Amino acid sequence: MHPERIRLARLRDKVMSAEAAATLIHDGMTVGMSGFTRAGDCKALPFALADRARTHPFQITLMTGASLGHDADKVLSDAGVTARRMPFQVDASLRQRINRGEVMFLDQHLSETVEMLRNRQLPPVDVAVIEATCITEDGAIVPTTSVGNSASFAILARKVIVEVNLSMPLELEGLHDIYIPTYRPHRQPIPLVGVDQRIGTTAIPIDPDKIAAIVFTDQPDSPSTILPPDAETAAIADHLNDFLMREVKAQRLAPSLQPLQAGIGSIANAVLHGLIDSPFEDLRMYSEVLQDSSIDLLDSGRMTFASASSMTLSKACYERVVHHIERYKSRLVLRPQEISNHPEVVRRLGLITINTALECDLYGNVNSTHVNGTHMMNGIGGSGDFARNAHMSVFVTKSLAKGGDISSIVPMVTHVDHTEHDVDVLVTEHGLADLRGLAPRERARVVIDQCVDPLYRDLLNDYFRDACRRGGHTPHLLEAAFAWHTRYRETGSMREHEGVLAD
Amino acid sequence: MHPERIRLARLRDKVMSAEAAATLIHDGMTVGMSGFTRAGDCKALPFALADRARTHPFQITLMTGASLGHDADKVLSDAGVTARRMPFQVDASLRQRINRGEVMFLDQHLSETVEMLRNRQLPPVDVAVIEATCITEDGAIVPTTSVGNSASFAILARKVIVEVNLSMPLELEGLHDIYIPTYRPHRQPIPLVGVDQRIGTTAIPIDPDKIAAIVFTDQPDSPSTILPPDAETAAIADHLNDFLMREVKAQRLAPSLQPLQAGIGSIANAVLHGLIDSPFEDLRMYSEVLQDSSIDLLDSGRMTFASASSMTLSKACYERVVHHIERYKSRLVLRPQEISNHPEVVRRLGLITINTALECDLYGNVNSTHVNGTHMMNGIGGSGDFARNAHMSVFVTKSLAKGGDISSIVPMVTHVDHTEHDVDVLVTEHGLADLRGLAPRERARVVIDQCVDPLYRDLLNDYFRDACRRGGHTPHLLEAAFAWHTRYRETGSMREHEGVLAD
Repeated sequence: MHPERIRLARLRDKVMSAEAAATLIHDGMTVGMSGFTRAGDCKALPFALADRARTHPFQITLMTGASLGHDADKVLSDAGVTARRMPFQVDASLRQRINRGEVMFLDQHLSETVEMLRNRQLPPVDVAVIEATCITEDGAIVPTTSVGNSASFAILARKVIVEVNLSMPLELEGLHDIYIPTYRPHRQPIPLVGVDQRIGTTAIPIDPDKIAAIVFTDQPDSPSTILPPDAETAAIADHLNDFLMREVKAQRLAPSLQPLQAGIGSIANAVLHGLIDSPFEDLRMYSEVLQDSSIDLLDSGRMTFASASSMTLSKACYERVVHHIERYKSRLVLRPQEISNHPEVVRRLGLITINTALECDLYGNVNSTHVNGTHMMNGIGGSGDFARNAHMSVFVTKSLAKGGDISSIVPMVTHVDHTEHDVDVLVTEHGLADLRGLAPRERARVVIDQCVDPLYRDLLNDYFRDACRRGGHTPHLLEAAFAWHTRYRETGSMREHEGVLAD
Repeated sequence: MHPERIRLARLRDKVMSAEAAATLIHDGMTVGMSGFTRAGDCKALPFALADRARTHPFQITLMTGASLGHDADKVLSDAGVTARRMPFQVDASLRQRINRGEVMFLDQHLSETVEMLRNRQLPPVDVAVIEATCITEDGAIVPTTSVGNSASFAILARKVIVEVNLSMPLELEGLHDIYIPTYRPHRQPIPLVGVDQRIGTTAIPIDPDKIAAIVFTDQPDSPSTILPPDAETAAIADHLNDFLMREVKAQRLAPSLQPLQAGIGSIANAVLHGLIDSPFEDLRMYSEVLQDSSIDLLDSGRMTFASASSMTLSKACYERVVHHIERYKSRLVLRPQEISNHPEVVRRLGLITINTALECDLYGNVNSTHVNGTHMMNGIGGSGDFARNAHMSVFVTKSLAKGGDISSIVPMVTHVDHTEHDVDVLVTEHGLADLRGLAPRERARVVIDQCVDPLYRDLLNDYFRDACRRGGHTPHLLEAAFAWHTRYRETGSMREHEGVLAD
């Protein structure tokens, strides 16, 4: 049965149902599953586990690359299976449980999870569940649309369950580049010096005897849910394009810029789309996720190569790429997220990184994760791996949210994911703040003048003026630093309600 | 005159007074000076510049490795010379000007300054002023007790002033290892794979024609001002030692641990001193500064090699080491701070990093720099370079300050230098919080139980309980998050004054 999918013949008797494979996973285990931003996730085991838990409750620690598709995180957490979760998630139901303190969530820099596993600073992976295109004659696993943490999970786990996804074309083999850093104290430099370089193998090499079960599936990945560009995201893209053109003109950047990283989401997607009509050429991408915009840039010829850890695409784009992968294979590579996000490589290549801020303060500190400082959205993801080590770290955000009741630019962020040191450029639809080489008081002036919405500009100017009167390198009024947030909580708006005075 | 100090004969006619050399520096210039935590700083030019400014005012941007000795930062800022300063300082007078907004200070990750210079994201260095042991026959500069940013300053500057310090023994030559990363896009891996490896040259290679002046000096470095261990710092050292022994027993660490980094200061110094009587062996250090404790560890045989960017020693230790450097040269190397602190190398080697927190919150976020969230102390220094990329990132602090009126463990830090992701272990004199693998609510429980002083434990428990009731992944009460700080500002103590009720 599907010998081309299981080329090591002796593994063929490991084929079983998802239900049978799920019995390998017991209460209290740590399970490492493939899947990165909906791509290459397991299509069967999460649901088989949830089914079993409904009659025989049990709990696991679930590690993945990043977020899962097909509502797997919802199904698993609704069934009570997920006790602990790392390193990233994007699911409304799981998020509620995390914010109620029912699921313990470890929000991690995405390059670090497997480093901590390898160093035994996290509990060991008992079972890895990995989606595969096929298993080679050596028993190595060829991933599908993401690599994520799959390689290290499979290598470190005691047992491996492979989900062979028949909907994935066999031609995906050769797309991946699997490299695992050598163990300390004998660790060598990661030999990657170019975006398009291959340094590893095309499949995950493991002891075939660890493969305890093989399950066939045939579902495609969940499509991405990126919103199309709107007036604000188009304005953000324009500001950034203009800025990059000025940098090229000043000869601080070449016309091919530096390799680009862009976070997932509608704004970053719009910014990349904006590059299609730019004068830049021979662009390259070294990122963690490829979105539709990355593929469009490749198709346009504006971009010549893209490296990432996963492909998270709309349905149309998925069909264009995954089912015609031969057209793209010479221009694409998927790597383990440890390598796509590795500080060593990010700094060596000198990336221009573009990530989304949830809120940003006067001084350029960025909150990427916590609504009102307390409630987790998704997680820091790779943004810390990239922003800290970038050639130029750009953060983008719309200046307003909730119809103007929230300003994304605030006196002080309620949670810090990226300190001012790691934020070179901030862009909203109103303008671009180039913060490089500026002291905090200078940064504040530029952020207020360029980025904040006029609805909040006077209020922010007042705060800054009063804070400067009190003094300090980074002036603040601690008793008022979160006044906008508490006002939002009490009145539904960060704005001062002048109406109250008029009544 | 001193031909052994200027081996390239044609440079000997560049010898002049500091006063004459100072005329090469004009208003508005950017000047890159040697000096890292008081070591290897320029002994003459800062004072000649200040003298001139008293009659002919002018201003410069001053870049260094880190802090300067001999009150140079005080003298320069009091004379109005310092308009902008980066990347680090430790001076009461300059600090006051920074906090009044009179001097623009760029607080930077110490590995990043020269990267930004090289990429022209900071204004170019007009003149470099570098303390030297000697100038070689090729015109290369042999540094003294620090390398810091000297190599890149000298290579990138248009003109170089060399201060040849006759008090530095010629035997310092060979102590340094100068390696500069190659330019992008052709940058290669930094080939360093071991603490004791040499990958560069023993002197800073520059075009000798750029050497515009040579000034002789003969003053030693300012001695360090580290306080001896006290009961609290000894307790912190004991907690950390016990923890490391447990890690060795659990086979998560070898008896030689991992290469150690320790920040400058009394607590880190005490922690290193504590290792002298430990059971660990063949310890190695990969740090930015060597203090007395590092030398004592070498002398004890407990440590076999130490790599850093500078040596900041007490008077007695300085004389023991600098004037008998041959005894130590096979066990010591000084590197550019870009290499001693480089994320690539820090992560590759897998350091155990020990840095000091000014305050830490419930969830393990650390403030290293800003008193009450506003007033700069010294700067983030290398702590961000190390903590982010460490094998294990340890932060240490006494639980109280100001005789108990300040708790170093607070509900929310008023400034974030290190996010919870980058803090694995927190130690106070009361105990050690092992935060690895814990979610925020779990981290809070351990921090309260292990680290906070009993004076503040109930108050912090109350805050955490009430915050959890309101919910969130990282529970907080924004309206009360800084109540302790505002109470301190108003009453002189973070404690609730029960006396008020009793009156």
